[in-house]
Amino acid sequence: MTDTRFDVVAIGNAIVDVLAHTEDAFLARHDLPKGGMTLIDSGQADNLYRLMGSAIECSGGSAANTAAGIAALGGRAAYVGKVADDELGRVFRHDIGAIGVHYGTQPLRDGRSTARCLVLVSPDAQRTMNTYLGACVELHPDDIDPDLIRSAAVTYLEGYQWDAPNAKQAILKAARVAEEAGRKVALSLSDSFCVDRHREEFRNLVHHHIDILFANEDEIRSLYQVSTFGEAVAAVHGHCATVALTRGAHGSSVIHEGRVLNVAAEPVDHVVDTTGAGDLYAAGFLHGYTTGRDVETCARLGGIAAAEIIGHFGARPETSLSALVKATLARDPGA
Amino acid sequence: MTDTRFDVVAIGNAIVDVLAHTEDAFLARHDLPKGGMTLIDSGQADNLYRLMGSAIECSGGSAANTAAGIAALGGRAAYVGKVADDELGRVFRHDIGAIGVHYGTQPLRDGRSTARCLVLVSPDAQRTMNTYLGACVELHPDDIDPDLIRSAAVTYLEGYQWDAPNAKQAILKAARVAEEAGRKVALSLSDSFCVDRHREEFRNLVHHHIDILFANEDEIRSLYQVSTFGEAVAAVHGHCATVALTRGAHGSSVIHEGRVLNVAAEPVDHVVDTTGAGDLYAAGFLHGYTTGRDVETCARLGGIAAAEIIGHFGARPETSLSALVKATLARDPGA
Repeated sequence: MTDTRFDVVAIGNAIVDVLAHTEDAFLARHDLPKGGMTLIDSGQADNLYRLMGSAIECSGGSAANTAAGIAALGGRAAYVGKVADDELGRVFRHDIGAIGVHYGTQPLRDGRSTARCLVLVSPDAQRTMNTYLGACVELHPDDIDPDLIRSAAVTYLEGYQWDAPNAKQAILKAARVAEEAGRKVALSLSDSFCVDRHREEFRNLVHHHIDILFANEDEIRSLYQVSTFGEAVAAVHGHCATVALTRGAHGSSVIHEGRVLNVAAEPVDHVVDTTGAGDLYAAGFLHGYTTGRDVETCARLGGIAAAEIIGHFGARPETSLSALVKATLARDPGA
Repeated sequence: MTDTRFDVVAIGNAIVDVLAHTEDAFLARHDLPKGGMTLIDSGQADNLYRLMGSAIECSGGSAANTAAGIAALGGRAAYVGKVADDELGRVFRHDIGAIGVHYGTQPLRDGRSTARCLVLVSPDAQRTMNTYLGACVELHPDDIDPDLIRSAAVTYLEGYQWDAPNAKQAILKAARVAEEAGRKVALSLSDSFCVDRHREEFRNLVHHHIDILFANEDEIRSLYQVSTFGEAVAAVHGHCATVALTRGAHGSSVIHEGRVLNVAAEPVDHVVDTTGAGDLYAAGFLHGYTTGRDVETCARLGGIAAAEIIGHFGARPETSLSALVKATLARDPGA
């Protein structure tokens, strides 16, 4: 794809994560659905922050994590998302730029603050997210530069943005521009509760406008309201050119050109925090896709990037993913 | 020490750490002395931040890390240090409170921003710190509540505060109040470059007003301007009731009641980031000291707490140190 300036332009909610360890009892006591993402308002965010433990702050945001992963893999990534003109906004801008992602969205002035996601990590490394969307809801269709979209091989969207009406219009504009330019459009379903909220729209989008779909087991089952993974695979089959379904420790299944391909997970010594696992899987997969690898290799690259991210706290890579991929593929080139 | 409300009140620079991985070549290119702490101004901080990689933010500050460690060990800790009334100041206040440390210092309004330490972590896990002191320099003697100092068995001071003239007056007041109340005064020498800057004052303080001294090999050699660790041990001997000298992978040496006791380091699987190792050693040691343990056990508790902190990114404990200590001592009760 030599006529492109970027491999992937990712569009999403620009969020700073605030991560703390917690006990399952804390989640139960505060009615926080374990493993899910709950939208909270500013007051709820302040209240939950007061109650939660000593934390670390690091840049997050699902599609932003994916863009960062692509850059760390040596790919050419751009990002679109709205922060405020405040300290956390500057942290977000620094981090995504420092990892090599092009990021030019104008910050919001005199409005809501930069979005925060209060991430509670359980002893089993599962993460429960509580998001105050802040400035993200002000992403406007004018923030989408058609030339940027046309300059990328893939436009990557996160389902979470359907929770913000303005932002949804912005990404629908991006998808339309990409489609008209003959580019590919990829979507992550983001979260099963998010799928619950927007099922019909998502299904229509997947069946008519998406070239590459990312989802985990819960999300794809929710999309088709079926109870087993097998039923979900059958339901999506034929509706979307490439579907990559992540299955945690069981690896991933890719539906492509009429075949279902299962790829094992990469071994991980010690799972510390699963925040960002799906985002980094998408990064690895899309990096493979935009560099012309077969779908099995795409899935393996996804697995390698996901394995790195769950070995430490936070959802941005801490090592050179390109070196990690080289070393892993050299050790075991696969089938 | 049942007549006390706190085991330890720690006084220090209240700092938020900004940690990023780096290569040694980056340190060389920007003349940053590896392993040391360099004071930088606001402009230098902005410039270095622009150049450094994607980062995570977490509360730091040497004495604050020690206070957090004591609380995580089940001890009763209080902290005194100056943040600004800004986002990072609220992060600092949240984190130290959430771990169970009493913290009542009023924030600085309409002045400098909360202090930041840009921490560059090399591939060998060594950290190089660059500190913008910000609001810390405005810690004032009025911020020292004599009743708080009298209510603590030990008042713990960090050498770093000698770099801020107002703050130095504040901690000298605290040391005086503690001494007059018959409480113990502990000091960490903080950094060999810091010792260079204030050698005569530190030596006078150690010889006349300090009951428990913490230093690493470089710092104690710098204090006496000697070239070997043995010479440094001989030089400090008899000048201070209890001296705990940390020696990295070689454990620590404690000079107490005329004897020099060597205690091995706790085994660590994989050293990730040495930020906070000395601070957490002091936490373990002081927790032992204030709960009436012998000095060998104090040194072991220091080693256990230090081993936890160097196994992950950042200088605040990520696990329950009290549970870790119980498990470690149960496995190997020592001599």
